[in-house]
Amino acid sequence: MSRIEILDTTLRDGAQGEGVVFSREDKIKVIRALDDLGVNYIEAGNPASNPKDRALFSFAAEHLRLKNACIVAFTATCRVGREAREDEGLLETLASGARTVSLFGKASRTQVEGVLQCTLEENLRMIRDSVAFLRGMGVEVFFDAEHFFDGYREDPDYALEAARAALKAGAAQVVLCDTNGAGLPNDIGRVTREMQKRLGAPLGIHCHNDTGLATASTMEAVLAGATQVQGTMNGYGERCGNANLCQVIPNLQLLLNLPCLTEEQLATLTPTARLISEIANLAMDERSPYVGRSAFTHKGGMHIDGMLKDSGTFEHIRPERVGNRRRYLMSEMAGRGALMTRLTQLAPGLTKDSRETRAIMDMLKELEMEGYSFEDAEGSLALRVLGVLGKRRRFFEVRDFHVFSRRPEDDKNAQAYVKVEVDGQVEITAEEGDGPVNALDLALRKALTRFYPCLNDMRLRDFKVRVVNANGTASAVRVGIESTDGRNVWSTVGVSSNIIEASFIALSDSIEYLLLGVGSNFEGA
Amino acid sequence: MSRIEILDTTLRDGAQGEGVVFSREDKIKVIRALDDLGVNYIEAGNPASNPKDRALFSFAAEHLRLKNACIVAFTATCRVGREAREDEGLLETLASGARTVSLFGKASRTQVEGVLQCTLEENLRMIRDSVAFLRGMGVEVFFDAEHFFDGYREDPDYALEAARAALKAGAAQVVLCDTNGAGLPNDIGRVTREMQKRLGAPLGIHCHNDTGLATASTMEAVLAGATQVQGTMNGYGERCGNANLCQVIPNLQLLLNLPCLTEEQLATLTPTARLISEIANLAMDERSPYVGRSAFTHKGGMHIDGMLKDSGTFEHIRPERVGNRRRYLMSEMAGRGALMTRLTQLAPGLTKDSRETRAIMDMLKELEMEGYSFEDAEGSLALRVLGVLGKRRRFFEVRDFHVFSRRPEDDKNAQAYVKVEVDGQVEITAEEGDGPVNALDLALRKALTRFYPCLNDMRLRDFKVRVVNANGTASAVRVGIESTDGRNVWSTVGVSSNIIEASFIALSDSIEYLLLGVGSNFEGA
Repeated sequence: MSRIEILDTTLRDGAQGEGVVFSREDKIKVIRALDDLGVNYIEAGNPASNPKDRALFSFAAEHLRLKNACIVAFTATCRVGREAREDEGLLETLASGARTVSLFGKASRTQVEGVLQCTLEENLRMIRDSVAFLRGMGVEVFFDAEHFFDGYREDPDYALEAARAALKAGAAQVVLCDTNGAGLPNDIGRVTREMQKRLGAPLGIHCHNDTGLATASTMEAVLAGATQVQGTMNGYGERCGNANLCQVIPNLQLLLNLPCLTEEQLATLTPTARLISEIANLAMDERSPYVGRSAFTHKGGMHIDGMLKDSGTFEHIRPERVGNRRRYLMSEMAGRGALMTRLTQLAPGLTKDSRETRAIMDMLKELEMEGYSFEDAEGSLALRVLGVLGKRRRFFEVRDFHVFSRRPEDDKNAQAYVKVEVDGQVEITAEEGDGPVNALDLALRKALTRFYPCLNDMRLRDFKVRVVNANGTASAVRVGIESTDGRNVWSTVGVSSNIIEASFIALSDSIEYLLLGVGSNFEGA
Repeated sequence: MSRIEILDTTLRDGAQGEGVVFSREDKIKVIRALDDLGVNYIEAGNPASNPKDRALFSFAAEHLRLKNACIVAFTATCRVGREAREDEGLLETLASGARTVSLFGKASRTQVEGVLQCTLEENLRMIRDSVAFLRGMGVEVFFDAEHFFDGYREDPDYALEAARAALKAGAAQVVLCDTNGAGLPNDIGRVTREMQKRLGAPLGIHCHNDTGLATASTMEAVLAGATQVQGTMNGYGERCGNANLCQVIPNLQLLLNLPCLTEEQLATLTPTARLISEIANLAMDERSPYVGRSAFTHKGGMHIDGMLKDSGTFEHIRPERVGNRRRYLMSEMAGRGALMTRLTQLAPGLTKDSRETRAIMDMLKELEMEGYSFEDAEGSLALRVLGVLGKRRRFFEVRDFHVFSRRPEDDKNAQAYVKVEVDGQVEITAEEGDGPVNALDLALRKALTRFYPCLNDMRLRDFKVRVVNANGTASAVRVGIESTDGRNVWSTVGVSSNIIEASFIALSDSIEYLLLGVGSNFEGA
């Protein structure tokens, strides 16, 4: 079985998603990550329409030596009434130095008539002329047939003619696009099969996720003969996004036995997906199949009991195969068995009946009564367990803090004073910030960075507050924060009736967990 | 074509998702929202395993009068070696008063042998006995055949026998569960078709999304004859979640012409999905098909050009059909049909095209850019709308406030100073409290009670905080509070990068909404 080719368009179609912005440096980081992952093609942008992308392509041509991937430029066929060799877009694309081009054009009769507003023959001319021109310059061309499936439904002969025009002019393959993302998987499979028969040429598949079916449709197209899969990491893209390669790749490889990557490359899928979400500065969807933090996380007590008897009970693959890991959540639904598994990860010597285990259980029970929940706070859980075992190292003590907040007039509307002690040395300092928690966070890290410079790289990614026993504004609140040092992500928690104190506990745990060595001694995200 | 039945399990299987926690009040709000949406069954929890759910079912039996939905309890078959009429779980379930029960049991040979660790016949006995016992008490039973598809692959005869045992004992239908979420849509369709032929009984389908295929698999099962669809709002659930009803319902109804809801109910899908995400205090996945904010959002310049020529160019349906709306990121926003309904409730004279409506839309657009969300804040929405219409009565002005918070040693660890003005009279006062928000709440009401004694009866019921644009601890936060005067309950919202200010806005709105006459002029929750 030959390998399925992967074309990643995170940097092009993915960047059309709301909130997705990549700087040139971001794009270079993403290209390196995708090359390490082992994709075949990286569609990096549209040099004809975007000066930032032009600069990227020149940089890539000069400086990037990739192990696995080719960089692809995306561009349109020449304009209506314009010859290809005189079309600015095609000339800019050539000038970018890209040796492979995704050339998009219309294959739908109504799109030609309604949007291009030219004759059907003129559109075929544009396709032929553009492909032939690029081929003549030695460029490999993938013809992206926009709205292919809608066009095929309206007028199959014209859609076929458009695809044939591209192939005859020298395109290496035709990419069938479900541009509106509403094709049904079975229809997409059937049409791909028909095209495979009628064209006898390599086909690619490019789906959008407007009905939640992009993964299924892409798989059907591959089963019907498509050999190139287009998609994006984490499914970024216009509207609801593109086919999510973090689902398509493992599904093809693990469910259908159609290899895309080596086993070793596949085992880096989760860290690659998370790195790209960090670069894009977008929160990871933690429920994502395969790569989400919850993907192999078990909460229900019955589920956990079942898992402890047989991991096949509620898992379809071993999480390590995609670089993820199994987690058991501590919650009212989970039993003692689940907690034990987590505890032995933290302190391998512990047994179910040891004195330490009982002490840990008592401590956790008490904290849960106060409103703590360690379900999503592996950092705080580890610190508390080490505390009971007498193994918690005090990296610092916070001797005192005060915060002041007034009615905001600018973004320096709160002040915090802190006094910390590290190895007998006292540091007193203050900071101002936007709100009391921000001021406290800044003051605390300012005071401690003198002793621990690595705190410079740390930042907060998320901040959540929940009331845990309703008593109006005097309710106990639980603050959960998620922190990162750029490589790891960890969560901590604090509870208090004073929201500042609850935030302080979570912040302070977060710093301590980083100093303890998140990601080495204890696993991060 | 008869309607496809929808069973929503957001409150049961959804609550097994990481980070999903519903209080009893949350659950009641969700039940009301789902009933308004028009689902047929609401699986509300597991009264046998959870005292919080027991309280919910008693409350529901006594106080909830639903228009469309039946409430369903979820429970397991009796235990190995135990008679159904002596099984505590089944007895608790009966005691809950639920008239419909989802009874889950094993249909997989390896699950019976490996996890239950009993004979194959004993498992069949447990199914028969449990169904017959519940039927004998007049309860409608849906038999949830756990791991059905895996079980059918291993030993189709045993899986069939388990299903038959349930039907013979009186189960109304068998629900085929893809518990591990790794079934392929075509396999799920094929097996459902075979079961349909061999059982000739109503079938349900329950899929999980571990491979991103739950929507496709659910649709295949329906095409193969399943008449009940199980899933959750926003796809919440264990691991990667359950089949997402916000995708499945519109796909069945709009792509396959299989009605689930009325057209009017379907047009409330987006606000319902968003309300439930607010209640769950989980960020909405804005790329969600149909209900995400980006679902009909156009960013690429070419896409926008195409859309302006023909909205079919990059949209598969009109967004209004699911209560969503089209947005152009680089051009003017389109109108918002869904909100109109809400506005005419507040100001009956308003029409879609009036000048006031446009002014309200502009104001809301601006506030939404700041991070406001009025989905679960009818109090603040009413006040803002009245403000634009020039009908907002200023009951009081807060001239200034300061808060101070120190490291807590007791429950008076924060102080607030406030200065208010009512009809030209100034009142300056202060209070201490447990945390800065509590101190501010107390001080504000102390100052105003002199003028408005009814504030004595008011108290806060819930307090929620959400980061709305992630920028560490300097992020903008949205504070939502729920207040009561003993008879009415209402919600308000405030946004600021300073959590004290955000809380202040929500508190102040809450007081103003009470003074305005919550529950008379405007309906509470």
